Amino acid sequence: MQPSPDKLLFTPGPLTTSPTVKQAMLRDVGSRDDEFIQLIRSIRERLLELAGVSTAAGFTAIPVQGSGTFAIESVISSVLPSDGKLLVLVNGAYGERMVRMAAQLKIATSVMPCAENDIHDAAALEAVLAKDAAITHVAIVHCETTSGVLNPIESVGGIVRAAGRRYIVDAMSSFGAMPLAMEAAGIDFLISSANKCIEGVPGFAFVVARCSALLETEGRARSLSLDLLSQWQGLEKTGQFRFTPPTHALLAFDQALRELDAEGGVKGRHERYAANHRVIGRGMKELGFRAYVPEARQAPIITAYHYPTHSNFVFEEFYQRLSDKGFVIYPGKLTQVDCFRIGNIGRLYEKDMMALLKAIREVLAELGVSVPVK
Amino acid sequence: MQPSPDKLLFTPGPLTTSPTVKQAMLRDVGSRDDEFIQLIRSIRERLLELAGVSTAAGFTAIPVQGSGTFAIESVISSVLPSDGKLLVLVNGAYGERMVRMAAQLKIATSVMPCAENDIHDAAALEAVLAKDAAITHVAIVHCETTSGVLNPIESVGGIVRAAGRRYIVDAMSSFGAMPLAMEAAGIDFLISSANKCIEGVPGFAFVVARCSALLETEGRARSLSLDLLSQWQGLEKTGQFRFTPPTHALLAFDQALRELDAEGGVKGRHERYAANHRVIGRGMKELGFRAYVPEARQAPIITAYHYPTHSNFVFEEFYQRLSDKGFVIYPGKLTQVDCFRIGNIGRLYEKDMMALLKAIREVLAELGVSVPVK
Repeated sequence: MQPSPDKLLFTPGPLTTSPTVKQAMLRDVGSRDDEFIQLIRSIRERLLELAGVSTAAGFTAIPVQGSGTFAIESVISSVLPSDGKLLVLVNGAYGERMVRMAAQLKIATSVMPCAENDIHDAAALEAVLAKDAAITHVAIVHCETTSGVLNPIESVGGIVRAAGRRYIVDAMSSFGAMPLAMEAAGIDFLISSANKCIEGVPGFAFVVARCSALLETEGRARSLSLDLLSQWQGLEKTGQFRFTPPTHALLAFDQALRELDAEGGVKGRHERYAANHRVIGRGMKELGFRAYVPEARQAPIITAYHYPTHSNFVFEEFYQRLSDKGFVIYPGKLTQVDCFRIGNIGRLYEKDMMALLKAIREVLAELGVSVPVK
Repeated sequence: MQPSPDKLLFTPGPLTTSPTVKQAMLRDVGSRDDEFIQLIRSIRERLLELAGVSTAAGFTAIPVQGSGTFAIESVISSVLPSDGKLLVLVNGAYGERMVRMAAQLKIATSVMPCAENDIHDAAALEAVLAKDAAITHVAIVHCETTSGVLNPIESVGGIVRAAGRRYIVDAMSSFGAMPLAMEAAGIDFLISSANKCIEGVPGFAFVVARCSALLETEGRARSLSLDLLSQWQGLEKTGQFRFTPPTHALLAFDQALRELDAEGGVKGRHERYAANHRVIGRGMKELGFRAYVPEARQAPIITAYHYPTHSNFVFEEFYQRLSDKGFVIYPGKLTQVDCFRIGNIGRLYEKDMMALLKAIREVLAELGVSVPVK
């Protein structure tokens, strides 16, 4: 059976990747063989470059098997001491997930919330930290995939560093496409995943860590599989993963990194995504859709749109008809507002955005939802 | 740059897989799209069939992101109550790993060891369980990849069940190639991985669980990512993984399952592996190598060989020269004896075994290690 031609994925990942990234997986390499050890080393070095840091400056990159959430948990479960306390700046589902994770790990946690279409305020954080000396670590999501909002990790980091706390940044859906200077932002642990803006396939995620912050975590890890310090020490000692790595996903990632370079690195990728986002934004506005996040707070990664109020609009039907036409969009994840989401990352270009807009217009007509939809 | 033709992997995995298994990854599917949800459902059903159980009989299959160790930890960290105690029957590195894992999880643990080239004895277990009422769970490795020894999980399971304890079996390197009747063996939690005898690519592992045993674990999970009950509940509720799955590895696994069927299922695969093992065993014996495990205790999966005593033999040199000829073997992992290992699983046939033997003979000549090597 021939598979149908693949649908385009307007999601936060897994994404539409290039044919060459997928073709890189047409090999079987030994996970402990020299060639693969070289590949891991090269990938780790390039991740540091993308974070604007280096081994010489005291940073390291640590791939972790599993999804992005596994890598987040590898940080939270490995770096918080038993008497530590985590403050999570929450404005969406991924911040909430860190809170739930810490609770399951029985780590003391405090939450600083803001509205899901707002961004966090460094000054407010300063007051919270001044009042609670028990807080040892502060965590925030860079681009909250829930809404697409972009938190000001640099100003927040300045406050965290000045207060002498450790700083954890979930850069899952921004890393590789949003300029980021890890040292300037005062970040100790930065987490992202293979299948986001670097446009690899899913199978592993990674942590870029300040070595001095990592070295102080000896004896804290609550899990064997997710033990971040041991994972690092294993990589440094043997060049290998401690436990079976997703070799094919790493081969794909190596190719994806080459293609990121070829596109002009983070700057080039950001430009393409920003152009995609502009096309979608303009087109959706013309169709009468209303974005949930004000443009000034919005990353060019994924955009949340309010459901039209028209009585003929049923999201499941809208989704299915778009899917049947070959366009996969993403349901909402907001707690209080009915939204759906359109991602513009992955191997997608302006022409793909135009094609999606055309399909949306057609589906609205089929559903009898008048345009503009408001 | 064209990659060199791939070396053949005589390892315990990642393995040499078929071209068609790898080609199944030349697609990007949405992780929450209908097609992928159907794929997950179908894979889960076929895993139950391979374990000789069914949904109707009260069993379920739960894929877990990461390597096999992640799935082992998803069981141990999720099913042991806080006042539970794990007895691990150890005769190799993978049994030891479960002990280390439980220690890191602060789970009370007891160890029942036997020699690494011996197998566990059900009668001895009966005495241990009779003496220690605190033991709630018993864990054993089916085929210990350390040595290739095959533990008698059926007779051990009879004792565990009669003593009213829960039974965890690490069937990592046996599942899919060794006949196994989960219910008859009294197994509550069986763990294996995508990139072993089913001949998929690495990226996830899976647990086949008795639902009644799983349902009693509410509130026990120590981790969010590795929460087995939640992973199951998520799959049952939405058909989806809770967190991003390795979509490409699952596409490859689906194809691998088809190819397992085409080969005659577990029986057919077992026959090919047994034939591979016979060829290697005979050839290595002719070359004067000595197997570490007596044949009667040996699974036809991976075989450990003593280093030759000849003074010209240096394993690293032996390994590298074989690798340069396109054959990747595996170092030893035994604690007290110098061995290397030859795996015979993956998309390998008798002709590949013959080719490896020829290469070994050549390398021994190059090294000036006389044949026979003893």
